[in-house]
Amino acid sequence: MTHAFDAAIELSPIGPHRFAGKTHAGYANMVGPFGGITAAVMLRGVLCHPERLGDPISLTVNFAGPLTEGAFELQAQPVRTNRSTQHWVLTLTQEGQVACTATAVSAVRRETWSMPEAAPPAHRPAPETLAPLPLAGYPAWVARYDMRFVEGMVTWPPNGELQSNSQSVLWIRDTPARAIDFASLTAICDSFLPRIFVRRRQFVPIGTVSFTCYFHADATQLAAQGEDYVLASARALNFSNGYFDQTGEIWSRAGTLLASTHQVVYYRE
Amino acid sequence: MTHAFDAAIELSPIGPHRFAGKTHAGYANMVGPFGGITAAVMLRGVLCHPERLGDPISLTVNFAGPLTEGAFELQAQPVRTNRSTQHWVLTLTQEGQVACTATAVSAVRRETWSMPEAAPPAHRPAPETLAPLPLAGYPAWVARYDMRFVEGMVTWPPNGELQSNSQSVLWIRDTPARAIDFASLTAICDSFLPRIFVRRRQFVPIGTVSFTCYFHADATQLAAQGEDYVLASARALNFSNGYFDQTGEIWSRAGTLLASTHQVVYYRE
Repeated sequence: MTHAFDAAIELSPIGPHRFAGKTHAGYANMVGPFGGITAAVMLRGVLCHPERLGDPISLTVNFAGPLTEGAFELQAQPVRTNRSTQHWVLTLTQEGQVACTATAVSAVRRETWSMPEAAPPAHRPAPETLAPLPLAGYPAWVARYDMRFVEGMVTWPPNGELQSNSQSVLWIRDTPARAIDFASLTAICDSFLPRIFVRRRQFVPIGTVSFTCYFHADATQLAAQGEDYVLASARALNFSNGYFDQTGEIWSRAGTLLASTHQVVYYRE
Repeated sequence: MTHAFDAAIELSPIGPHRFAGKTHAGYANMVGPFGGITAAVMLRGVLCHPERLGDPISLTVNFAGPLTEGAFELQAQPVRTNRSTQHWVLTLTQEGQVACTATAVSAVRRETWSMPEAAPPAHRPAPETLAPLPLAGYPAWVARYDMRFVEGMVTWPPNGELQSNSQSVLWIRDTPARAIDFASLTAICDSFLPRIFVRRRQFVPIGTVSFTCYFHADATQLAAQGEDYVLASARALNFSNGYFDQTGEIWSRAGTLLASTHQVVYYRE
C-alpha cells in the first residue's frame, strides 16, 4: 500500500521540465495543504528530474499564495549544471497563477575534512518514554506525524500565557512510520508548530512566506536512519510588525545533524 | 562623489523587468566579485523596480557560477503581487549564462504585537575601543569595510590551529562610512569571513552556494541607524563532506535585530 506521504508528493511528467500533481486531503492545513508537503513536492521536482546531478544541498521555497485543494503544475528547471553542482529554479502554479517559487542546489559530495560544531539539545529523553502530542484542535496534517515533545508543546486550548522563549524540542517521525528520505526530511523541517503559538500560547493567523532547508546528510547517511525518530529543535529570534523568523535543526538519534532549516513567517495581531 | 557601494550596485533599466549593471573592481574577491555585493545587486533589482510593493522581508541568492569582471544583465520579475506581499524571481546572467538566481519577498508591514526573543552577544565592547582587522592577505572587498573584531578574527598568515568553534563577533560598517540601507545590510550579511577559516585558522578554497537574508527592520528603523557600526555575529553548525553552513545576526548598537542570515558554503580539502 502506498504511504500517504508518497501519494501526496507524486508527480507525473507532462513535458520537458514539467510535472503534474495534486493536493492530498491527509495533509490539509487550516487553509490549503501543509506547507511542508508542498515544499517536499517542490524538492521532488528535483529528485525525480531525469537530469538531476547529486543530492540536494539546499532548498528555498517561497509561498506566494495559498494552494487550493486539487491539481497543480510544477515546473522544475535545471538552469545551470557545473561539474559537481546543479542549480534549480522551480515554480508551482494552479490555473496559471504562481502559488510557490523555489530555488535549489544539488551536488555530488566528495569526502573532505569534516567536523561537527553544534551538538543536539543535551536534555533529550528517549522518544519511547514520552507521550505523543494530543491532536485535538490541530489540522489534518498533524496526525500524519508522531510528535513527542521534550519541551515547547502547545495543546488545545492554548492558555494564552506568554512564555520567555519559543524553544521546542521534540522527536518526530511519519505516521505510519516511513524510512526518512530527502523529501520527508524537507517536510519535517517545516513541521514545527509556528513559534508564535509557542511563545504566546495563543493561535493567531500565520503563514510561512519563505522556507529554507540545508541538507547536511547525504543519501547514504539518511538511508541509515530508516524509520527511526529524528530529534527536532526550533526557536525564533524576533517577532516584529507582522513577521517572525524560525531556526531549527534535525538530528539523528545518534546526534548527527541531518538538516538545518530557517523560515520567515507572516502573522496577524 | 558617489560612494563605491552605490557605484557597484548601480542598475540601468533596459526593458521590462530587465536591468544592466557591471562589476566594480573595489569589491573584487579572490575569483570574481564579493558575493555580498552581488546579493546587494540582486536586491537592488527589487528595490529599484517600478512595481515594487513595500520593504524587503527575505532574499535568497544562489551563486550558480563565478561572475567575471564586466557587464551583467539582471532580470527581476514580480511573479505574484498580493494585497500586502509581493514575490520576486531574479536571474543574473553574463553572456546568456546564468550566474545567480534569487527569490525575494517584499511586503507592506503593519504594526502588530512585537517582541524580541534573542539578545545580542553579551560581550560587546564599543567599536571605538577595538582595532580594525588588518587587511594584509585579504582581497580588495575587505578594504571596503571597517571590521572591528570582538572575537573570531583571522589575520594573515593563519596559524592552522583548529579552534573549538567558529564563532565571530564584530562591529562593521562601510568604508568610507555610508548610511545603512537594505542593499548595504544585505552585503554586510555576506561579509563574514568563511566559518571554515575561523574554525581551522586556515584558508581553503570556498564558495557560497546559497545565501539567505531575513530583514527584521523596516526602512524607518534602518534609516535611524545612519552611518553607525552594526554588531555582526556568526557561527556554523556543521562541516561535512564539502559543505558547511553559517548562521548570523546583525544588530544595531542599541541591541535591535536588523537582519538574520544563513548560508551554505562549498569547500575543498
